[in-house]
Amino acid sequence: MIIDCHGHYTTSPTALSAYRKKQLAWMDDRTLGRPRPPLISDQEIIDSIAGNQLRLMDERGEDIMLISPRASGMEHHRPDRGIARDWARVSNDLVHRVASLFPGRFAAVCQLPQTPGGSMVEPVRELRRCVEELGFVGCNLNPDPSGGFWTARPLTDPFWFPLYEAMAELDVPAMIHVSSSDNPAVNTLGGHYLNADTTVFMQLVEGDLFSRFPTLRLVIPHGGGAVPYHWGRFEGLSVRMGKPPLAESVLGNVFFDTCVYHQAGFDLLTRIVPAANLLFAAEMLGAVRGNNPSTGAPWDDTKRYLDAAGLSFAVRRQIEEENVRRVYPRLNKVLS
Amino acid sequence: MIIDCHGHYTTSPTALSAYRKKQLAWMDDRTLGRPRPPLISDQEIIDSIAGNQLRLMDERGEDIMLISPRASGMEHHRPDRGIARDWARVSNDLVHRVASLFPGRFAAVCQLPQTPGGSMVEPVRELRRCVEELGFVGCNLNPDPSGGFWTARPLTDPFWFPLYEAMAELDVPAMIHVSSSDNPAVNTLGGHYLNADTTVFMQLVEGDLFSRFPTLRLVIPHGGGAVPYHWGRFEGLSVRMGKPPLAESVLGNVFFDTCVYHQAGFDLLTRIVPAANLLFAAEMLGAVRGNNPSTGAPWDDTKRYLDAAGLSFAVRRQIEEENVRRVYPRLNKVLS
Repeated sequence: MIIDCHGHYTTSPTALSAYRKKQLAWMDDRTLGRPRPPLISDQEIIDSIAGNQLRLMDERGEDIMLISPRASGMEHHRPDRGIARDWARVSNDLVHRVASLFPGRFAAVCQLPQTPGGSMVEPVRELRRCVEELGFVGCNLNPDPSGGFWTARPLTDPFWFPLYEAMAELDVPAMIHVSSSDNPAVNTLGGHYLNADTTVFMQLVEGDLFSRFPTLRLVIPHGGGAVPYHWGRFEGLSVRMGKPPLAESVLGNVFFDTCVYHQAGFDLLTRIVPAANLLFAAEMLGAVRGNNPSTGAPWDDTKRYLDAAGLSFAVRRQIEEENVRRVYPRLNKVLS
Repeated sequence: MIIDCHGHYTTSPTALSAYRKKQLAWMDDRTLGRPRPPLISDQEIIDSIAGNQLRLMDERGEDIMLISPRASGMEHHRPDRGIARDWARVSNDLVHRVASLFPGRFAAVCQLPQTPGGSMVEPVRELRRCVEELGFVGCNLNPDPSGGFWTARPLTDPFWFPLYEAMAELDVPAMIHVSSSDNPAVNTLGGHYLNADTTVFMQLVEGDLFSRFPTLRLVIPHGGGAVPYHWGRFEGLSVRMGKPPLAESVLGNVFFDTCVYHQAGFDLLTRIVPAANLLFAAEMLGAVRGNNPSTGAPWDDTKRYLDAAGLSFAVRRQIEEENVRRVYPRLNKVLS
């Protein structure tokens, strides 16, 4: 069984973006009234998935996808907490419907209603609603709700602990995923996403979060940003700071997805990071669409890279299925 | 001949940091008076280099190092322009003395007196002084003088053009190098440095700087941040934005150093990035000191990785010498 741990509902019906537009207009002009959640039919949802994510999953041989709302659409840098709450609820309800309409093919991962400086009260409430009432298997946590200015405290700061306590209690992991960059110097897909992966890994190396939360599980997407490529740098910095080797300090709790879009990069990832820390993913339809002209294959068809990586059957099973089930244990309930 | 394009004077005599301390005190309390440049003897400089950078160069077989002031010490986020000017002058004068005291072994690269929001007037003036009067071969350009908050415009913005015009006229390149992070969420050596490399590469992919400045040469350090590892992502994003392939859009003007501190990462770099775009470097004594316990060799001994990379003699000559001479043509004058 092949489980893709990192998919987004990037193909949602236009009624969702129309709703968001109304929300933002209402934020600027309160006379407009709070917009009502969009009316979207089951058939619209089915159509938006069947010809896109599901078609590609079938073509590529993926069985299940963990799907969450569009990451760049989370827009946590918009400061209104009520709007953030409504937006997360509407977005999460929609991916819940995706998972319900395609049982056994999708499992839902939630967006959290974060805002710059906003407390963990609303995120914890929405996480509980999604997991306890709707059967979600995890959440996406944005380490930089400012959208590219990095005004939040590091993820090792007690500020975030209420969320970790709820995650531990519910036994769900978080994928560390920023949203769109509001910073003209930093491109969302080619800068901010990768930088966030690298930044957070280093926060975790510097801190001591997993002594406090030994069961906490964090997934760093996009192949870990710059981390596997600079593994020696991180090992060396860790030792220089008087920390234990990475295997002891963070690899019990930190996992990387396989969203690396060329063979040499993919091979580096699978050679450097222990197999127990790798979760298969493609992030489709995500940042990079279209085909590599030199191979004719889609850039984001990570299944091809996995096939060509020369891994043993046992290692492949770990990456394709076992690790995801271990990191997202509620997935077993969804699949049984 | 082996030329290391990326060294910093991280071992400067303590009188330099004492001077800096006085500067910062003066910034807060103007009654203290503007501090005088530190008095440092030739012998102190010789001692600070001979047992450190020079010893390692000899041990590792490096002939020449391009040396610039300590990158994390540039501290462009301190907002006072007069202090930034004094600090750059003092720091640059000192690396000039290093180059003069060890002729044929070091060539000087300058720090620019940047400040958050500060114009290019002072940086251009200091660049001219260093190159025209002191024989410097290049400069370090900080794309984020805010120190980790990314408040500056992207490097493709006309804001920076006066500097590029001076660089073109003087025929010197810039290494893109941030200074210390003033942001508690972003570690300097394990986050900010790598993020800046990635961010700026993407700025250059998005923009069209080299049509305007066809002879401009920019060196991205630390093996290009996350870029070579995510080469497929950048190629794919570039195509998706309607840009030409990276080889056409940026590789005529953008170069990467080889500061990647493990063999697999180093091998990825030399396999993915064309040899014409690679400049040998170790950044010693820099971010990562100490030995890899599994090999017993220093993390930053990139010469070992180069030796083990299985490259042809011709490619090695390109990486070790020819490319650096081409990118930093004033180096030929220093060496002749």
